[in-house]
Amino acid sequence: MRAVTISEPGEPDVLRVCEVDAPTARPGEVIVDVVAAGVNRADVQQRKGFYDPPPGGSPYPGLEVSGRISALGEGVEGWQVGDEVCALLVGGGYAEQVAVPAGQLLPIPDGVSLEDAAALPEVASTVWSNVFLTANIQPGQWLLVHGGSSGIGTMAIQLGKAVGAHVAVTAGTQEKLDFCGQLGAEVLVNYKEEDFVEKIRTATGGHGADVILDNMGAKYLARNVDTLAISGRLVIIGLMGGRRAELDLGTLLAKRAAVIATTLRARPETEKATIVASVREHVWPLIESGVVRPVIHSRHLLEKAADAHREMEASTHIGKILLTI
Amino acid sequence: MRAVTISEPGEPDVLRVCEVDAPTARPGEVIVDVVAAGVNRADVQQRKGFYDPPPGGSPYPGLEVSGRISALGEGVEGWQVGDEVCALLVGGGYAEQVAVPAGQLLPIPDGVSLEDAAALPEVASTVWSNVFLTANIQPGQWLLVHGGSSGIGTMAIQLGKAVGAHVAVTAGTQEKLDFCGQLGAEVLVNYKEEDFVEKIRTATGGHGADVILDNMGAKYLARNVDTLAISGRLVIIGLMGGRRAELDLGTLLAKRAAVIATTLRARPETEKATIVASVREHVWPLIESGVVRPVIHSRHLLEKAADAHREMEASTHIGKILLTI
Repeated sequence: MRAVTISEPGEPDVLRVCEVDAPTARPGEVIVDVVAAGVNRADVQQRKGFYDPPPGGSPYPGLEVSGRISALGEGVEGWQVGDEVCALLVGGGYAEQVAVPAGQLLPIPDGVSLEDAAALPEVASTVWSNVFLTANIQPGQWLLVHGGSSGIGTMAIQLGKAVGAHVAVTAGTQEKLDFCGQLGAEVLVNYKEEDFVEKIRTATGGHGADVILDNMGAKYLARNVDTLAISGRLVIIGLMGGRRAELDLGTLLAKRAAVIATTLRARPETEKATIVASVREHVWPLIESGVVRPVIHSRHLLEKAADAHREMEASTHIGKILLTI
Repeated sequence: MRAVTISEPGEPDVLRVCEVDAPTARPGEVIVDVVAAGVNRADVQQRKGFYDPPPGGSPYPGLEVSGRISALGEGVEGWQVGDEVCALLVGGGYAEQVAVPAGQLLPIPDGVSLEDAAALPEVASTVWSNVFLTANIQPGQWLLVHGGSSGIGTMAIQLGKAVGAHVAVTAGTQEKLDFCGQLGAEVLVNYKEEDFVEKIRTATGGHGADVILDNMGAKYLARNVDTLAISGRLVIIGLMGGRRAELDLGTLLAKRAAVIATTLRARPETEKATIVASVREHVWPLIESGVVRPVIHSRHLLEKAADAHREMEASTHIGKILLTI
């Protein structure tokens, strides 16, 4: 089969389509013939050599796909060859075929095309596990989403609104902020022009953000802690702004607040299966009823994976970038 | 009535017994005639001027007492004048009488004397709310308790063991460590002579601590994060080692771990009532069956509160220091 390989760590041009061995299904896994793959910022980090796949994972990038099941490994129940599915992966999505533990499969939601469904597994699982299962956001609480126009961000806005939370976002252009507003975000902060701490404080009447979903890490740590409400939860899922920063534990203690840092990819299969099952139970009905929808910015052929990465690194996109086969 | 007042921020001698107005019971409160009061490190901070009582709280120190109910405010149900109780306070325990919201009252556990029961409310509520309700320790997990011989520490060791967790402690003398071992701690670290990071790593076979209960704050932050297990929870309840320190979010993210800082005193009454109810349900039976017991180091008369503070600041005690009336 063909897969996008990383010839060496580097710029987008190191992504090369090569003929490689097709995957085989281990017990409990299925083979999916890929129709589309979601592009994630983690793939860019992997391409640069900063985010190696976990031991035993596929060496090819790609954390989510949609497609059709073409083979079942030993002991797989509840799925059939030919089923249309999307899937959360530990890697290997930029390829014609990928092996997936059955617990990481999801059906295609009614009303979403097979191709578009590739935009869902990673963002839905990330937002659901962090904002809901971990940070336990409640109706009426304030959710601050940094990078509101990203794939993660557009899903977080919609899911936050769907459960009755108030949503604030940061983004870097008016166009992106306008889009976030259309998705339901009530407070829009242009981080290039405004101080999000002050703006969130004012917009919430001094309350602050009950939950913050952050992809910046060190650069925003102090300001995020300043923005937290009493009993607030800061959930850090990316370190685009660095890894080391001073933490004021006095402020954190006075707020009785938590700083949680986490990642989906490295979780054991059993935890991923639990998350995916919860996504299917809670998020899929919201998609099928039209309350939440995938936001897709662009599509590139698998051969043009380098273009997809250039687009992501330019950060002009709103929503997800897909690769299609 | 007589109460211990803080004439000005300063050394133990600023603690003076004075005649002051007796408290009155607001709706939902009772008056307790105090038999004994627990001494907590927070009282020392308050005496020094670093930890003012929350708005509306008593100006006198003291976060827990035992005694007898002498008056009921409007709307109090389930308690009678004459009942022997112990109570979690926002302040005012170093006095002959104190007003207490009824939700913060606990009965005297069978097998514990009225006086000794003053050693229980603050430590039981702190340990239960943080290690169990917040950090959700599970049987078989590792709990690291810094300051294992303190009032909080001796309760944390016993409750950890009671639910089937493994317990490790740090303390500064062999005598303190021996006592922690008698209470059930399996790993004993003399922090003056040994590196707790390395010792916990070795003792847990590389696993690390699933939950850390910390009173040091900044001084231990990096080492605590290094000691956490995958999915570990660091709960900081004191800042004896300072408030600002560098946090390595990369390590935290790789471990999918959380840093939580909290305090009991500033929580709203409704949250305190929830915690106290959970303590009564889960901790009181363990005390009544003899699995968990109050550990009391010494008793001082109310007039000798300065001696009690000197003893606490010398840090030679094991367990709780009480004031008696």
